Amino acid sequence: MADDYQVFANGDRIGMPVHKPLLELYVKASGIENRRIGACLFCQEFWMELYALYEIGVVKVEVKTVNVNSEAFKKNFLGAQPPILVEAEKDATYTDNREIEGRIFHLAKEFNVPLFEKDPVVEKRIESLYRNFKLFLRAKTDFDQNKDTPSSVSSLPSQQLASYNKIVEQLANINELLGERGTRYLLGQSMTEYDCELMPRLHHMRIVGQRLLGFDIPYEFIHLWNYVLTAYRTAAFIESCPADQDILHHYKEQLNLVRNQRETLQAPTKTYTIPEKVLQEIQRLGLDAK
Amino acid sequence: MADDYQVFANGDRIGMPVHKPLLELYVKASGIENRRIGACLFCQEFWMELYALYEIGVVKVEVKTVNVNSEAFKKNFLGAQPPILVEAEKDATYTDNREIEGRIFHLAKEFNVPLFEKDPVVEKRIESLYRNFKLFLRAKTDFDQNKDTPSSVSSLPSQQLASYNKIVEQLANINELLGERGTRYLLGQSMTEYDCELMPRLHHMRIVGQRLLGFDIPYEFIHLWNYVLTAYRTAAFIESCPADQDILHHYKEQLNLVRNQRETLQAPTKTYTIPEKVLQEIQRLGLDAK
Repeated sequence: MADDYQVFANGDRIGMPVHKPLLELYVKASGIENRRIGACLFCQEFWMELYALYEIGVVKVEVKTVNVNSEAFKKNFLGAQPPILVEAEKDATYTDNREIEGRIFHLAKEFNVPLFEKDPVVEKRIESLYRNFKLFLRAKTDFDQNKDTPSSVSSLPSQQLASYNKIVEQLANINELLGERGTRYLLGQSMTEYDCELMPRLHHMRIVGQRLLGFDIPYEFIHLWNYVLTAYRTAAFIESCPADQDILHHYKEQLNLVRNQRETLQAPTKTYTIPEKVLQEIQRLGLDAK
Repeated sequence: MADDYQVFANGDRIGMPVHKPLLELYVKASGIENRRIGACLFCQEFWMELYALYEIGVVKVEVKTVNVNSEAFKKNFLGAQPPILVEAEKDATYTDNREIEGRIFHLAKEFNVPLFEKDPVVEKRIESLYRNFKLFLRAKTDFDQNKDTPSSVSSLPSQQLASYNKIVEQLANINELLGERGTRYLLGQSMTEYDCELMPRLHHMRIVGQRLLGFDIPYEFIHLWNYVLTAYRTAAFIESCPADQDILHHYKEQLNLVRNQRETLQAPTKTYTIPEKVLQEIQRLGLDAK
């Protein structure tokens, strides 16, 4: 297949079994450039989970970016869409999120990695955040249609304002939960599937929020910001994260916002910083030392 | 959204609760015509499951075909792909197969519908059939590239023959299982998720096999044929099944077989018959009376 590249392979830990399953993950390429990672949330979620297994040395992982419109890809997978997980030695190709998760679940279980611990409270808190963000994104970009810069929140009509308020309320609830728990990740000191779900979504919200909506996570949600900072210090997240330009391009494409395609010409950059003021407050409170 | 149409709504059963949740399922439209159902296996699988709930009168279902390339669709779902399940009164949009299955699972549980009974033997028997069929399809269409009609099995080189043999072996195993169990569906007298998975796949294999590969399910697999006949007599299957032309078009598009696009001009037809000889044998054995 064209445009494959090997992102990483092999990880070693003393005392681990010599034979490691090799898992190949096909992720969607950026619409700007086929060799760059695209903004596919499910792809990043599974990549982070696989990375967690790779990091402790129990599996080998290869990630390949694919242009879903290429003839080579279509012919190879006959209509399946990324993420796609291939395990050649088992002769297996998993094209369904249910199957991919099932396979990673079993690997995690086999190697005693608590990646899939359940927590109904966390599940409930995070479940419709991204969905609501998309509603807000659509409503606000519609409202801002012919404006040069995003309008301010205070100028929004009631419908748009309601969708904004819903997001803020949900973010407040997550902030509260993180504050109560006082842990690095949602469930404790190590990453679980919930983090693989929430971290990329929060990052998309930041990138798209800043550039298209004049929106950012409110600065007073200090525990949430600290969580975002944790993402930016988590190898599984960093490794699997698309560039800002690729994230932005994805949403603009879907929203048919073609008026300014500047990001297609820019060198790819990645935002892994949080506002200076918030960072200082986090450091003052010692939250990042957890 | 353009090209919506309501396929069915409302089902009534005496003594059932008055309030029924309304579930909207967005399925991929045919590449030939936006108002026709496309060949999306996950879409058909969930549609069949929802139909089972609708049929006993516990939910209302509306199915909408969507052109994934339309601006209206992209803007509405911002990058999500069908199947998509919307439950407006819960303000919920499920865009992930894991979530969609989760929601249907809970509904089935709530209304005591045994749609998700587990059977590891059945699971194992059916799991890689379609995957292997796709390997065979690719290998054989490559081999037949410049031929006017599909080559016969006996003329195949060893690699292609091996992928053919694998399919036949798996079909034989499923035929055997069905023979041993003597049930209408895989698990018993009523349809489960395994049937929603296998029936559409077998049907695709028949339609694509006949037209592109010179392949059909071997006639001696009488229990398997009887199972195919059961599919053709199951409302959930019939209602959700794309036309032959739309199935064929989907695979030709993926395989980049553009040499003969006759099916785009044909009136849509659906094959719900099995070979006469096989039907007679089924009737002689009384298998269809189960």
